[in-house]
Amino acid sequence: MSTEPLLSWLQMAVETGAMLAFALSGLLEAARKRLDAVGICVVAGLTAFGGGTMRDLLLDRRPFFWAAHPGWLWGLIALTTAAIVFLKFRHFALTERAMQWPDALGLGLFSASGAQFALDQNLPGIVCVLMGVVAATVGGVLRDVVCNEIPTGLRDHRPYAVCAFAGGWVVVLASQAGASHDVALMLAAATASGLRILALVTDYTLPQWTSGAAPDD
Amino acid sequence: MSTEPLLSWLQMAVETGAMLAFALSGLLEAARKRLDAVGICVVAGLTAFGGGTMRDLLLDRRPFFWAAHPGWLWGLIALTTAAIVFLKFRHFALTERAMQWPDALGLGLFSASGAQFALDQNLPGIVCVLMGVVAATVGGVLRDVVCNEIPTGLRDHRPYAVCAFAGGWVVVLASQAGASHDVALMLAAATASGLRILALVTDYTLPQWTSGAAPDD
Amino acid sequence: MSTEPLLSWLQMAVETGAMLAFALSGLLEAARKRLDAVGICVVAGLTAFGGGTMRDLLLDRRPFFWAAHPGWLWGLIALTTAAIVFLKFRHFALTERAMQWPDALGLGLFSASGAQFALDQNLPGIVCVLMGVVAATVGGVLRDVVCNEIPTGLRDHRPYAVCAFAGGWVVVLASQAGASHDVALMLAAATASGLRILALVTDYTLPQWTSGAAPDD
Repeated sequence: MSTEPLLSWLQMAVETGAMLAFALSGLLEAARKRLDAVGICVVAGLTAFGGGTMRDLLLDRRPFFWAAHPGWLWGLIALTTAAIVFLKFRHFALTERAMQWPDALGLGLFSASGAQFALDQNLPGIVCVLMGVVAATVGGVLRDVVCNEIPTGLRDHRPYAVCAFAGGWVVVLASQAGASHDVALMLAAATASGLRILALVTDYTLPQWTSGAAPDD
Repeated sequence: MSTEPLLSWLQMAVETGAMLAFALSGLLEAARKRLDAVGICVVAGLTAFGGGTMRDLLLDRRPFFWAAHPGWLWGLIALTTAAIVFLKFRHFALTERAMQWPDALGLGLFSASGAQFALDQNLPGIVCVLMGVVAATVGGVLRDVVCNEIPTGLRDHRPYAVCAFAGGWVVVLASQAGASHDVALMLAAATASGLRILALVTDYTLPQWTSGAAPDD
Repeated sequence: MSTEPLLSWLQMAVETGAMLAFALSGLLEAARKRLDAVGICVVAGLTAFGGGTMRDLLLDRRPFFWAAHPGWLWGLIALTTAAIVFLKFRHFALTERAMQWPDALGLGLFSASGAQFALDQNLPGIVCVLMGVVAATVGGVLRDVVCNEIPTGLRDHRPYAVCAFAGGWVVVLASQAGASHDVALMLAAATASGLRILALVTDYTLPQWTSGAAPDD
């Protein structure tokens, strides 16, 4: 197919940007919590690779993507070293805001490819969607658990997992409708990323638990 | 065997009740911690499916039970939605007390079947028992870790893992004594659930660390 | 080889000492947090077996080492029981200091053998090293996560994972240089343990994040 080189170049660019966004979000939280250099590197790595690793564990895919492409591990070490040397604390908030956009692209990419990997194993639709959600969200959950916080993604009332959920269904339904692999992936990634960007731009929040009084019974 | 349809009907009823009890305990803790809708669904799911998933990961059983029976995932989404719409905060304590009984049945079922799965792989007795304990307890541990609490089951001095431990040994010993699969499972589940119910009724607590002064050295 | 019986006897002694040191560090933290008897046993077990189990999960090695050698599980139960009966709180600080030395030996043993297992699967060098680090450190991370603390190893500015990292590279480079299995393992374990002991003796700390003002933006 003539679109393949462009596609794979695009995918690599998005993947690199997404990994960078994930790793930086872990790095910033670890630095805020005053972890040491090892802790910063570990939390950055957990955030960047945790979701994909959990997806591969659950789907029994070996070698893991970071074992097949060890360049990611070297990149992580280089990023952490550079951040400790060059990044100032006063740039943290700015960095975090700038990272929202590659992070949204990563959300699309990981939810689409996670669902596709499960679909390749002929798993049921809802399970494929769940794998996309796992790949997109588990890194952030592990980051917050290790930093001793309730995971942001489970309490900030912002749609994140929900966008991954929608993207996963696009993969499943497009495949059932006979779309090619690449088309299904692109539609799904665009849906998940688009919804996330829309939510960021419009400052949308999820509906809240409305029933009854305070929860301290 | 003529008892099979009854048994499998019974097992399904107990399993559904247990899953409901596990999911509701996660849902209530997540709501108390003021997680958002996604967080409530995730924590409910971790509590309900975490133990079985960890058991399947350790025993290398694929597809996971929720991948083989995706109805559980749909049920979880329906339960969370219904709870957010209908359940009032003032019903939480009541719900939690009512759930102790199906939870005790689930404890028996999961510890017995977890040990049996390991026995089918010819693993040593103590490892089979451990798998039963993992299946029965890991969900609650993950619920509390994600909600940023020390797991209740590790500090409330109530026998829970201990009942699963006893149930696991019943599977192992009954199998060695030549009991049929079904008989071993039923004896074990009855032992674990019975011990748990006895502990609930008699308000029994585990013996405590008695040695010496305060632990703040 | 004539050195084999001595080697395997030495390895067993070091392994037992290391497991004891790991289990005791979990046991002490659990007791300090006032967990119950079950919690103390679980946290001691997570600390002792968590790293090796994660390594085996990631490398897809079954049965796990504690399933192949169930004596470890019995030993853990015996240790926990003995500690609850005999260990006084006032001995905690002393026990912890005494355990630093077998712990340093365990660090060397686990990082070397973890890297070697990965090398046997022909994984890239950096991945082998990572497996050594995982085997040596994940137990302590799980201990602290379950006890609701930010993992000590990620914030105490003491080299631990860094020593495992160095030991892992010794395995990889010695194997590439044509060293025998045993020699590579011994050199690596001696490097990692030696660096750790050196750091303990000299009270060395890792370089810190130096850039800019306070991290509370």
